[in-house]
Amino acid sequence: MTTQIATNVHWHHGQIDRTTRSRILQQTGATLWFTGLSGSGKSTIAVALEACLADMGKLCYRLDGDNIRLGINRNLGFSAADRAENIRRVGEVSKLFVDAGLIVLSSFISPYSADRELVRQLHIDAGFPFLEIFVDCELAEAERRDPKGLYKKARAGEIKNFTGIDDPYEAPTRPEIHLRSDHLTLQQEVDVILAHMKSAGLLGALQQSA
Amino acid sequence: MTTQIATNVHWHHGQIDRTTRSRILQQTGATLWFTGLSGSGKSTIAVALEACLADMGKLCYRLDGDNIRLGINRNLGFSAADRAENIRRVGEVSKLFVDAGLIVLSSFISPYSADRELVRQLHIDAGFPFLEIFVDCELAEAERRDPKGLYKKARAGEIKNFTGIDDPYEAPTRPEIHLRSDHLTLQQEVDVILAHMKSAGLLGALQQSA
Repeated sequence: MTTQIATNVHWHHGQIDRTTRSRILQQTGATLWFTGLSGSGKSTIAVALEACLADMGKLCYRLDGDNIRLGINRNLGFSAADRAENIRRVGEVSKLFVDAGLIVLSSFISPYSADRELVRQLHIDAGFPFLEIFVDCELAEAERRDPKGLYKKARAGEIKNFTGIDDPYEAPTRPEIHLRSDHLTLQQEVDVILAHMKSAGLLGALQQSA
Repeated sequence: MTTQIATNVHWHHGQIDRTTRSRILQQTGATLWFTGLSGSGKSTIAVALEACLADMGKLCYRLDGDNIRLGINRNLGFSAADRAENIRRVGEVSKLFVDAGLIVLSSFISPYSADRELVRQLHIDAGFPFLEIFVDCELAEAERRDPKGLYKKARAGEIKNFTGIDDPYEAPTRPEIHLRSDHLTLQQEVDVILAHMKSAGLLGALQQSA
């Protein structure tokens, strides 16, 4: 657990809350967390899902390992400690976006169970919906695709700490959605997620508690 | 400038962009950056402005020094280096929210000009609207208000590095909006900001470039 440094800080409640924003948007904020090997299809699925949700008038935002590492996490590398801090910060950003009312599509290799559990717990503690989506792809298939040429570089020793090669990937044991990305079409993957979101009540406005 | 650590990362463009999201929301994303002493009224003004904008159907989100320090920046203190990293991360988060289409109300003491300029430049480089709002209040008046009892603690030496007491506040020289918070009512302050937003075209949907 990251230590809280600053003291004398207290949450400043506004007059406008998550319920108000949900009403403006007519949707329920949620984090959809895509985890899987590089090349497993996380970002591709997130991009396709985002397009479907936008067609339905939903406001989404994608957070992506590469995008975030060029911005807020530009000062982090790929050691276990930096990976943990990378995921922690993204988890906090995702939570802010859910509080703002958006459907967040976060695509990160996020290879360590403990890091993913921390993000899940952040959401549970706040009462925010969180779906872990395991984009499950055999290493051999991900390496065959190698869309960014990264496996080739990792095998050549040009990239160190590469997940699946010289760094572990701890597969989720109880993800909300388990996609066998080497057995499904992109459309099928999107449909599975949309069906799950619908049954979880995540496609309409936030339900008021009684 | 923070050094970029990770290599082999590239921005992953989706099919849905800021223009699409602006159309869904019928508004233009922008960062309104409130800077000023503790007790100057930054958060109070942001909360009141947020309520007005929500009444107009606008989707806003407030980022606040205290709130952020309990989450994404919980591992930062109040040294100059930590303050710089605090503001850098908040600047990046603000930019993500603007890209998502929201009107972001960021209230941070943000005492150093260089840190605020970095945030401004992040927005300028992305072509995103950024308004610096200087909530200008005499130290004596802020200390008289002392809503959180922090000046008293700082004077007693219980809090170190407190802006205005034993840490500097570098006032903005060219803020977009300069509010003399000890001379205006809250409603007047909100009205000044709304008028500026209207004249800057920030209350309607994003204007398409030709």
